[in-house]
Amino acid sequence: MIAEISVIPIGKGVDLASYVAKVVKIIDESGLDYKLHAMGTVVEGDGDRVFDLIKKCHHKMLELSERVYTTVKIDERKDNKGKMLEHKVQAVEKELGKNLKK
Amino acid sequence: MIAEISVIPIGKGVDLASYVAKVVKIIDESGLDYKLHAMGTVVEGDGDRVFDLIKKCHHKMLELSERVYTTVKIDERKDNKGKMLEHKVQAVEKELGKNLKK
Amino acid sequence: MIAEISVIPIGKGVDLASYVAKVVKIIDESGLDYKLHAMGTVVEGDGDRVFDLIKKCHHKMLELSERVYTTVKIDERKDNKGKMLEHKVQAVEKELGKNLKK
Amino acid sequence: MIAEISVIPIGKGVDLASYVAKVVKIIDESGLDYKLHAMGTVVEGDGDRVFDLIKKCHHKMLELSERVYTTVKIDERKDNKGKMLEHKVQAVEKELGKNLKK
Repeated sequence: MIAEISVIPIGKGVDLASYVAKVVKIIDESGLDYKLHAMGTVVEGDGDRVFDLIKKCHHKMLELSERVYTTVKIDERKDNKGKMLEHKVQAVEKELGKNLKK
Repeated sequence: MIAEISVIPIGKGVDLASYVAKVVKIIDESGLDYKLHAMGTVVEGDGDRVFDLIKKCHHKMLELSERVYTTVKIDERKDNKGKMLEHKVQAVEKELGKNLKK
Repeated sequence: MIAEISVIPIGKGVDLASYVAKVVKIIDESGLDYKLHAMGTVVEGDGDRVFDLIKKCHHKMLELSERVYTTVKIDERKDNKGKMLEHKVQAVEKELGKNLKK
Repeated sequence: MIAEISVIPIGKGVDLASYVAKVVKIIDESGLDYKLHAMGTVVEGDGDRVFDLIKKCHHKMLELSERVYTTVKIDERKDNKGKMLEHKVQAVEKELGKNLKK
């Protein structure tokens, strides 16, 4: 399973990096493969572990903020166990005949 | 906690209502307060129960489809236990001085 | 075309209804069909008009707040002009054999 | 302005890379800075140009598919013109005291 997690504290001003970092730390320590980008973190792993991680991330932010806004996008396919994190990008690059990694 | 759940089967054609209905049935049977709208279902309840329900909805669709795309938006505030499902809409209506319920 | 719009001011505290109301007012005045729910507003109409409205909503909030976080979900099908706002919910209700409107 | 765009064809089977590539091609040709990841593409640029691009991406997919599901997340702050694509990730990495780029 692959999931994009984005957790935002509401009511903590406009600079959120220090809050977001505390959530990313939990993702980093989970041992799951992940990739941080400018609008969220994409995580890959066993479904139960990813769902647990989503919950942990949300709860962590709730320790730090009165109100929390979390968005999650999940993509799971039965025939594709593992490596979607890389393969999805590579499949698009192959179609384009172009390496987009910068 | 309030969460909007949207679960879509990929690869099952363009008419998805019969698939979506099976997920909404699980939400309906959960006993949690919810409201179905054209782009998803908004559910309210205890955090653990809502997270469990999200997982159940996603897994249900995975029984029915090779690939599943799930999007979730969560809004939780510590000072507001219960009734956000109605209160959030009412607070906006009050500001507008207008009842938007149609 | 049907679109769910959710526009949140970042850095304006935890009570956002007065800000959200100003965006909903723009949607209300657009003349397009819409439905406000607890996690966003679902709007239906001609594609160009809906895209214009999304932009207007985002810009309105940017007048009111230093930082704005907007999420949009769009569902468009070529064979279904109009009435998706109601029909999508009705199609699910029909499958369930149950009226969910409360 | 920074926006994450994700455009999915509904009813075109489970392998979507060839469709997604046609949308990413449009983003690539727009001249805007962007970063493709496993759950979408994050684009940065002037607000009008980014909104135009979102519309173009959605319409491109509609040429290729009967039904299209598009999700967009936008983050804009008035005091931060440009470079959010990199700075947001760097700010989190700085907080963590760790380079996450792999």
